[in-house]
Amino acid sequence: RCHQRSVAMLDISFPPFCAFLGSLGLLCVALVGAWCQHWRGGFSLDGGSRTFNWHPMLMVTGLVVLYGAAALVYRVPNTWSGPKLPWKLLHGGLAFGAFILTVLGLAAVFHVHNSRGTPNMYSLHSWMGLGTVLLFSCQWAAGFGAFLLPWAPTWLRQFYKPIHVFFGSTILMLSTASCVSGINEKLFFSLRNGTTQYKLLPAEAVFANTLGMLILLFGVLVVGALARPSWKRPDSDSLDSRQVPGTR
Amino acid sequence: RCHQRSVAMLDISFPPFCAFLGSLGLLCVALVGAWCQHWRGGFSLDGGSRTFNWHPMLMVTGLVVLYGAAALVYRVPNTWSGPKLPWKLLHGGLAFGAFILTVLGLAAVFHVHNSRGTPNMYSLHSWMGLGTVLLFSCQWAAGFGAFLLPWAPTWLRQFYKPIHVFFGSTILMLSTASCVSGINEKLFFSLRNGTTQYKLLPAEAVFANTLGMLILLFGVLVVGALARPSWKRPDSDSLDSRQVPGTR
Repeated sequence: RCHQRSVAMLDISFPPFCAFLGSLGLLCVALVGAWCQHWRGGFSLDGGSRTFNWHPMLMVTGLVVLYGAAALVYRVPNTWSGPKLPWKLLHGGLAFGAFILTVLGLAAVFHVHNSRGTPNMYSLHSWMGLGTVLLFSCQWAAGFGAFLLPWAPTWLRQFYKPIHVFFGSTILMLSTASCVSGINEKLFFSLRNGTTQYKLLPAEAVFANTLGMLILLFGVLVVGALARPSWKRPDSDSLDSRQVPGTR
Repeated sequence: RCHQRSVAMLDISFPPFCAFLGSLGLLCVALVGAWCQHWRGGFSLDGGSRTFNWHPMLMVTGLVVLYGAAALVYRVPNTWSGPKLPWKLLHGGLAFGAFILTVLGLAAVFHVHNSRGTPNMYSLHSWMGLGTVLLFSCQWAAGFGAFLLPWAPTWLRQFYKPIHVFFGSTILMLSTASCVSGINEKLFFSLRNGTTQYKLLPAEAVFANTLGMLILLFGVLVVGALARPSWKRPDSDSLDSRQVPGTR
């Protein structure tokens, strides 16, 4: 029947999709590095524009790609059976790594602004970005307290889990939107003179616009993978406390 | 039990949430209108900056607020029983209205660029925004063909429905991200002189940044409402062809 064939077409398995997502994520990291290195003077810690370059580099690596990897841990079928604690540690550890890179990425831009006397936190990009990072820190702390510390009661884990899942996708959407508005803003700042004006679409603009579109694609695909029912752990609606079976 | 109380706390019903979302959407429309009217000279069709103002006005009204209303139609419990065709017409009609406003919003910015000799389609905002509108037009045409025209076979409707649902949320995320990058870009363009530089955070910047954050909040809440299992039509996984029961 046509129907069975068509449903089978949609039923791709998670591992090859995950490999594609991983490649796309690494491509985004490589492209943001190439952009900063080739057109924006590379990286340094002197408080100038080469220090600023750490900001896009760390945000794309931490708040988008590593965050996406952390979010997808429980979609790997190996995590569905056996002891859960190692996977919780992997999920929390990747998210913590993403958080550290994010904080360093924020530190880079504040350091550049402060050494130049530029005000902080005036653009919509900065409001949205800092809001995203604040949500992420609440998400990490609440996830740690509810799912990793052993004394959270089962009813609290059950109550909080759908909230944690919802904010997991929401924060990724907000972080990709922040990246895109940041790339757009940076190109308007940087491409202002002569033949390299942004509106003349020089090579750098095509390159960084493409990077922005790939970041959006990565974010949409991760959020889609998280939402796909057949990739969720089969018991994901039941009690989230297999770590200590029979207690609480 | 604590657990029952905590689950009950999460179990808000759709109508009051929808009323809140409606108010938030209307607030966004009112604020973008007030921004254009009070700080950006109001609206006209002369091809200048007052023509440009139609662009944010129509995009926020069409591609965010009216689109969000269209997306939420099937979350209204009244749509879950009785004949489905009127609700399909409402869903498709609201989406068509959103699409018309979006096309007019695009026409406004192309008209301004062309009459000033500014190139079109160079910024990341424009790439993402046009990509979003193209996805939306495919979504509307495919939805019309599969769900409103009577000759689509049931297997095709079943096959396409999860894809339509996925892109429904995705397009809304992309459109809110486009709005935010556009507001950010517009503020950098407009706030450049003297005491009204963007980085000095004049009243207009606070106002429009707040508008951007409210648009993000609206988008996140609509996508969250769409994803919430208990607000979905109970039979949403079963055959999507109650319009003509027993046939096909």
